[in-house]
Amino acid sequence: MSVIYNRVALIGLGLIAGSMAHAMRRGGLAGEIVGTARSAETRKVAAEINLCDRITETAAEAVKDADLIVLAVPVGAMGKVAAEISPHLKPGATVTDVGSVKKAVIDAVAPHLSEDVHFIPGHPLAGTEHSGPRSGFAELYDNRFCLLVPVEGTDPAATAKLRSLWEGMGANVEEMDAEHHDLVLAVTSHAPHLIAYTMVGVADDLRRVTDSEVIKYSAAGFRDFTRIAASDPTMWRDVFLNNKEATLEILGRFTEELFALQRAIRTGDGDHLHDYFTRTRAIRRGIIEAGQDTDAPDFGRGGKR
Amino acid sequence: MSVIYNRVALIGLGLIAGSMAHAMRRGGLAGEIVGTARSAETRKVAAEINLCDRITETAAEAVKDADLIVLAVPVGAMGKVAAEISPHLKPGATVTDVGSVKKAVIDAVAPHLSEDVHFIPGHPLAGTEHSGPRSGFAELYDNRFCLLVPVEGTDPAATAKLRSLWEGMGANVEEMDAEHHDLVLAVTSHAPHLIAYTMVGVADDLRRVTDSEVIKYSAAGFRDFTRIAASDPTMWRDVFLNNKEATLEILGRFTEELFALQRAIRTGDGDHLHDYFTRTRAIRRGIIEAGQDTDAPDFGRGGKR
Repeated sequence: MSVIYNRVALIGLGLIAGSMAHAMRRGGLAGEIVGTARSAETRKVAAEINLCDRITETAAEAVKDADLIVLAVPVGAMGKVAAEISPHLKPGATVTDVGSVKKAVIDAVAPHLSEDVHFIPGHPLAGTEHSGPRSGFAELYDNRFCLLVPVEGTDPAATAKLRSLWEGMGANVEEMDAEHHDLVLAVTSHAPHLIAYTMVGVADDLRRVTDSEVIKYSAAGFRDFTRIAASDPTMWRDVFLNNKEATLEILGRFTEELFALQRAIRTGDGDHLHDYFTRTRAIRRGIIEAGQDTDAPDFGRGGKR
Repeated sequence: MSVIYNRVALIGLGLIAGSMAHAMRRGGLAGEIVGTARSAETRKVAAEINLCDRITETAAEAVKDADLIVLAVPVGAMGKVAAEISPHLKPGATVTDVGSVKKAVIDAVAPHLSEDVHFIPGHPLAGTEHSGPRSGFAELYDNRFCLLVPVEGTDPAATAKLRSLWEGMGANVEEMDAEHHDLVLAVTSHAPHLIAYTMVGVADDLRRVTDSEVIKYSAAGFRDFTRIAASDPTMWRDVFLNNKEATLEILGRFTEELFALQRAIRTGDGDHLHDYFTRTRAIRRGIIEAGQDTDAPDFGRGGKR
């Protein structure tokens, strides 16, 4: 592969930006990778592990002469960063982001950017429950989706270039509009995360079962929830506050269904339960067939008899 | 290791019993392993793959002269099987089970067994989302917990022997009473499973997001739910119907907490969300420290930015 952007500026150096740095190097996709982060500790670690070619103290310095600027900060901080970098952007540069929410990010960022830069919001559907500059790795985006959400009037050539970068990092790129993105993600990610957080909190609260029992006996189901519920608190606070409408809509549907299943348990309606569980099993098969997961037994895991 | 039971009868040949057969052979723990299943197809497959030393057509034949009888059928079928085998049990034999619910199994099974056999209910906290005679493997119980729930008056020597068998299969054995077991499992397994089933069902129902989108973009959170929600429908129907009280109690707590978090999202109370998510993260650390999971990044997974 060959260089797609001469200079890439990563604003924020957590799991997502760190993995981009590794993946861009793997593919030789960037001439120079400049990074910055608000926290001095993060910058220090990033410099120690040689995550970028150059680390700057401020975002304004980082974006200087950059051809691509990646906003990789929590969704709630995107607007502030956009305001900060805006006067220092090179005309013709492309600004993208990696936030889990798109409508709110567009509303926060777009007003700060001048007409002579391209703003192409994005969202790679990949990650782990780890965070920080040491958590990145080059393979994170391999065979994962990256959704691009071009706003009206975006230059198709600029979009095509950003698409090549993500493809070079291993991702499958698709485009959709911001509103639809936020609904799809509310279903596949945001609501499940809130539910996992809730269940883990309930377990912690319960007086008659000790935390150590919950931890010891968490082989099944619950352990997957704790993994999800270990994700970065600031990032997820911002996701929920910025995808309020779609998340609340899905949660409303969820509680409605949950009440119906609770009623089936209470009244002993085994057929209702069996039919429901049979239907959900088919969705899992679809995911395996779509190549998004494997059906190899997971030794460390415990769906359980 | 050496033989602990001369003849073991496995009633039901799914993931749990199949893995027991593999693990007992690995450890040389049983003189002879006899297996049976209600379905002719299951018996045929089990014979083909040589899962047991001998396959019988009926449970009555299987238990003949057996020193240990393992009831490995769905919780709702335990009583019927106990009635069927009871007249054929050897005096001094031990009967155990592997059901996910203990109070209801004891109520269903104990009345059928005579005084001259030992009944020691059990529950290995291990499994995958796969089922059937081909799904078992010898390592399933390695470093997992197996809970034994001896009923009043159980012979300690018989319990010690069953404990040795599970330890020989790799498990860590603990004892607790049936009621507490059912509450602990409602928190760590039963409620999480119902919640996962519900969320997957909601996604399937949603008109504005297609199934194929849900499947394609399920990298984060949702994919873990689909794995849980792919577990055997019959087994789980029986779990919920037979651990009704504890499951409904936990679900009640869950919806209460969920409503509080929904309200925090609606009112924009970021501090409430951040505090909650910080607390749940600590529980995950506890699980990793307790050695029940690793914190290695999971490449196929997607807690996501």
